[in-house]
Amino acid sequence: MGSSKPTIAFCGLGAMGGGMATNLVKNGFPVIGFDVYTPLVDSLVARGGRAAQTPAEAAREASFLVCMVANAAQVVSLLFEADKGAIHGLQRDAMMMLCSTCPPYFLHDLRERLDKEGRSDVKLLDCPVSGGTIRAADGTLSIFSSGPATDLDNAKEILECMSGNLYRIEGGISNGTKVKTIHQLMATTNIVMASEAMGLAAVAGLNTETVFEHVKSSDGTSFMFENRVPHMLKNDWHPYSALAIILKDAGIVTDTGRKNSFPMPLANTAEQLYISGVARGWLRDDDACMVQLFLPSSSPDLVSSKAKADVKMASNFQVSSDTVNDLLAGVHLAASIEAMAFAKHLGMDTRLMYEIISKAAGWCKIFDDAVPPMLEADQWALGKCSIAEK
Amino acid sequence: MGSSKPTIAFCGLGAMGGGMATNLVKNGFPVIGFDVYTPLVDSLVARGGRAAQTPAEAAREASFLVCMVANAAQVVSLLFEADKGAIHGLQRDAMMMLCSTCPPYFLHDLRERLDKEGRSDVKLLDCPVSGGTIRAADGTLSIFSSGPATDLDNAKEILECMSGNLYRIEGGISNGTKVKTIHQLMATTNIVMASEAMGLAAVAGLNTETVFEHVKSSDGTSFMFENRVPHMLKNDWHPYSALAIILKDAGIVTDTGRKNSFPMPLANTAEQLYISGVARGWLRDDDACMVQLFLPSSSPDLVSSKAKADVKMASNFQVSSDTVNDLLAGVHLAASIEAMAFAKHLGMDTRLMYEIISKAAGWCKIFDDAVPPMLEADQWALGKCSIAEK
Repeated sequence: MGSSKPTIAFCGLGAMGGGMATNLVKNGFPVIGFDVYTPLVDSLVARGGRAAQTPAEAAREASFLVCMVANAAQVVSLLFEADKGAIHGLQRDAMMMLCSTCPPYFLHDLRERLDKEGRSDVKLLDCPVSGGTIRAADGTLSIFSSGPATDLDNAKEILECMSGNLYRIEGGISNGTKVKTIHQLMATTNIVMASEAMGLAAVAGLNTETVFEHVKSSDGTSFMFENRVPHMLKNDWHPYSALAIILKDAGIVTDTGRKNSFPMPLANTAEQLYISGVARGWLRDDDACMVQLFLPSSSPDLVSSKAKADVKMASNFQVSSDTVNDLLAGVHLAASIEAMAFAKHLGMDTRLMYEIISKAAGWCKIFDDAVPPMLEADQWALGKCSIAEK
Repeated sequence: MGSSKPTIAFCGLGAMGGGMATNLVKNGFPVIGFDVYTPLVDSLVARGGRAAQTPAEAAREASFLVCMVANAAQVVSLLFEADKGAIHGLQRDAMMMLCSTCPPYFLHDLRERLDKEGRSDVKLLDCPVSGGTIRAADGTLSIFSSGPATDLDNAKEILECMSGNLYRIEGGISNGTKVKTIHQLMATTNIVMASEAMGLAAVAGLNTETVFEHVKSSDGTSFMFENRVPHMLKNDWHPYSALAIILKDAGIVTDTGRKNSFPMPLANTAEQLYISGVARGWLRDDDACMVQLFLPSSSPDLVSSKAKADVKMASNFQVSSDTVNDLLAGVHLAASIEAMAFAKHLGMDTRLMYEIISKAAGWCKIFDDAVPPMLEADQWALGKCSIAEK
């Protein structure tokens, strides 16, 4: 009787967490779910999980706690709220895996607070993820795990079950989050660039579907471009990944830059554009809706309406599919250098960082072309890539 | 025997505080000074003040405490440090005037902490200043005071003694600091623009002294331009106002923008440039040294070396004194709009805000030209100004 697999308390069952928890259930782990929004708990129960009324209740029967809430403030509330907080239920020597994206310094604050509250026994792993909701549901996320080696060994089975690429980052907690932060510098820039590029294509009168197909097979493409543009082409702002999320991540990126005296003009520009989107009232919409910033307010659906247009050269603008591709490739190249220089500045393993980004949602084609020669020579000059050749 | 004027504890005797405290002494106030750097205390004593070994000791005999340390973290330490903190010395019903520039939310945090530590009796006034070290020494600063009306009445004599322009901002504590934050949006942009403009002049081969004189009498001028450029012309990086200070203020500006979902591309760009300066090792130099960012690294003194150069047109660049002036006027105009729109967004009195900036260190000529017509019509279109006419 009973499963041979350990029971997992899973808190935060939203777009990402719901898929991750379901995957654990599918793989035979007993999962007790909690979310402030109870329909999400019901949905997990329908898939074979169990329900808890509070984080403390979820934690009580579990030796592992996975935390996938939206931000650091929610983590604090989830753990430390009077009576209801997970800390009041966590078993002795339980392991907490923090998968939410938080600022790097927060990991150390959290460890300190656990200790101060008399829970030095609780093990804390830093396990931020990347890949979006589809990979979360598929169990093929990238996970950047860091923490004490023994704890990472003990958590491996669970982390592997949620990930396609499980990385172990040396140097203790906060280093996994640093990797995620560097990765998000790429993500935050690439998302907004997909919008700017498609906005340009639409305003220039190009067939936006043709542009999309052309860029996809050229050096201007990126994971974010391929993922977001289909929504733009359908004017579909359903929040697959809400603006609120990338805005929060962009804030962590730029804040970490400021705290480390590292200038990052691209990431800061991207963040300011997201804030412009929030000012337009788009916080809860998908971040693909940012394309509207680059469209005339009289034609906010210009990308989708041009999707089926006859192909024509917009001679006034002298803009072609290649122009759009070059815009993307150029900014992606700058973002790749900004991200890799930041990794170097933070003392991270730049070769591992390259490998991670090249397989995650921050990926772009030009990154693959330009970064390896830079690492090879350990020189931060432009390597052999199509941009440099042009 | 004894002065009829109240005794003032003055903590933070640096470039600004030293001048402010000396002014109080000159005006007949008994002043007890404290600073972590004791030579600054000695200097106040030489000018007629008294010395204290700790903030608590300074506060013990005073009914007023003026706080002019560098940032919010220093305010917390100054007030709450075990045994030595001012809170352990402050008389019952004493009045604290916070003149340091802190984030707006910090004022409320501070009030809350005073209450929590059982010192609800201590009155807290929010009194940030602007104007630089010369105005501090002259007692002609701009002070943006806010707090309970009775307390502001009781502090008036002291605040007037340090200021040339004493403003009373409605709405309670943090509103004075909001005014300072909006003002610093102008300051932070104008400082870096003075550097960019003079860097352009030097690289274009112009006589930089001639450019300075031309801009000073044209619509590209600003308080910061007139104040910083003389140092650039002498390659003088003595920290009259260290990069660290405007960097801290820029951080408060951009952080307040983020917290209020208000995009501010100029202030964020300026902040990133300051961070680039920090990365070059200039944190403790005067912020005028930022001009070196815009010069070839082989000629970091190009502005000063061109100061006496023969006037010549740099035909390659097609850059003249007018180009430099136009660059300044254009960006100052954008900064003026960014600042006034931010004031509106924060619900501040935009007419008062105009009056304040027009007399403070964030002033620029184009602000005077462009903002009044905008306020007049309550329309955020460009008014009649030379830029719009060109």
